[in-house]
Amino acid sequence: MAKILTLTLNPALDLTVQLPRLEPGQVNRSDEMQAHAAGKGVNVAQVLADLGHQLTVSGFLGEANPQAFETLFAKRGFVDAFIRVPGETRSNLKLAESDGRITDVNGPGPLVSEAAQQALLDRLEQIAPGHDAIVVAGSLPQGVSPAWLQALIERLKNLGLKVALDTSGEALRAALKAGPWLIKPNTEELAEVFDCEVVSVAAQAEVASRLHAQGIEHVVISQGAQGVNWFSVGSAMHATPPKVSVASTVGAGDSLLAGMLHGLLSADTPEQTLRTATAIAAMAVTQIGFGIGDTAQLAQLEQGVRVRPLTEQ
Amino acid sequence: MAKILTLTLNPALDLTVQLPRLEPGQVNRSDEMQAHAAGKGVNVAQVLADLGHQLTVSGFLGEANPQAFETLFAKRGFVDAFIRVPGETRSNLKLAESDGRITDVNGPGPLVSEAAQQALLDRLEQIAPGHDAIVVAGSLPQGVSPAWLQALIERLKNLGLKVALDTSGEALRAALKAGPWLIKPNTEELAEVFDCEVVSVAAQAEVASRLHAQGIEHVVISQGAQGVNWFSVGSAMHATPPKVSVASTVGAGDSLLAGMLHGLLSADTPEQTLRTATAIAAMAVTQIGFGIGDTAQLAQLEQGVRVRPLTEQ
Repeated sequence: MAKILTLTLNPALDLTVQLPRLEPGQVNRSDEMQAHAAGKGVNVAQVLADLGHQLTVSGFLGEANPQAFETLFAKRGFVDAFIRVPGETRSNLKLAESDGRITDVNGPGPLVSEAAQQALLDRLEQIAPGHDAIVVAGSLPQGVSPAWLQALIERLKNLGLKVALDTSGEALRAALKAGPWLIKPNTEELAEVFDCEVVSVAAQAEVASRLHAQGIEHVVISQGAQGVNWFSVGSAMHATPPKVSVASTVGAGDSLLAGMLHGLLSADTPEQTLRTATAIAAMAVTQIGFGIGDTAQLAQLEQGVRVRPLTEQ
Repeated sequence: MAKILTLTLNPALDLTVQLPRLEPGQVNRSDEMQAHAAGKGVNVAQVLADLGHQLTVSGFLGEANPQAFETLFAKRGFVDAFIRVPGETRSNLKLAESDGRITDVNGPGPLVSEAAQQALLDRLEQIAPGHDAIVVAGSLPQGVSPAWLQALIERLKNLGLKVALDTSGEALRAALKAGPWLIKPNTEELAEVFDCEVVSVAAQAEVASRLHAQGIEHVVISQGAQGVNWFSVGSAMHATPPKVSVASTVGAGDSLLAGMLHGLLSADTPEQTLRTATAIAAMAVTQIGFGIGDTAQLAQLEQGVRVRPLTEQ
């Protein structure tokens, strides 16, 4: 069992609203509304907790509506190291109609002041050293710059910590310069940052070797139903997930990241690490939510994962 | 200054979502989301507080998301006598597009158990007697029957309390049997309960005299821009509001009810009572929200209200 800290700089309160049909301009009635504490780092923490690890969660949380988060953290036994900031954590509405159509309405988050950013750095200096790895996941809130994220990762590295990163765009571009231990982009995120196609294995290997040279040990590229390519120094592997019926892809990437961390920190073989991580991501796809409720189902999905060296191709 | 208790059996968390345009099936971005503690009794309490009265608020509140309510109550100095029930207070989404179109999505509330209903009755027996009037406003939550509402009003009356009622449909029909002190239906609500047209003054007077015979002293009929008809035993008056530009009618009815209570409990003349109440409702219409921020504006609106005896017509 490892001690892992996940950092969610821009969490969200997901409000899923079930309704028969969305009629714009009318008064609609919803049969069910459910609020969930969400955000990539919070999601990763939940999957890691399912796998038996001890979690600390941190980032910025709006002080006006923390209750769903606090309830979740208390229920899961997470150490709550979030910095409270004035205002409301953003809400993301998902209006789900009975024919399956989903309308998203994503709200703005609070503006995070420099004082709050400093408070987070101070808190991390205090609490991070006791952990085996740090996950930094998701987008940046208003007020936080990509350069600040880069500096944050440099400080965590200087504390001797393994940093796993999952973000995109300018934030990813800046953070790569700090040389995190592990990154988990999908092909679109990688293409955006490198401004080129990275669909072929050859192109991915080329990009990965540049990243290895920057000190990034593990480059995990998620490709949805096509599976996962994992480039580490001196080794490259591909995993194809079993075919599953898709309920929702929410949390699939976060599940893959949690699974990779689990294997690497548990000293599983690379083949077993990638197999389990791919199965956990496939399991997320079979659910409206994500997480490991049924270990027998997970074992079955693991058997369906095909892992092969990429060099054999 | 009076002591007033308002009862909101089915409060709502209003979430107003500003967005340029609602595109169903797409990912939409909102520039602003604001959550407000709402519900008729809570709204009435806020206007009464603006008028200088001391408030106690009660009803049923979902224990999973009370924060917006608790923050409001603390800010306004309300005594919080709400019974907490398992689950979430319902959310009502208002998706407001920049062209003015509004799409409402109203959620379901929590199921209120018999034990919670008994807990509210017990609490009211304990705290209600110190108040000058009780307002019972809004719809009934799941699990609460119209017959229960009738019994509640009977108990409050037996404690010697003045009960002002603002509800509709089956709840209004049942509650009328208990003979509340004051009711404030609009013409549609009255027509539904009496199953007949009540547009003409003669029809309204006929219905009002039946209600007076049941012990209901004040029948206040709101007719939007057409004004207010107030039938009390031995007197009938009409008020026409000044013409105002309409920003939102949210809270206008609640403002009228608060204004009527204010005048009646302050022993203002009937003419002054109706004039002020009508002006407060008109003031609500000029705002996105409601309430008395600008007393000079209220004084000006009062001057624009025309009050005349209905018998003169």
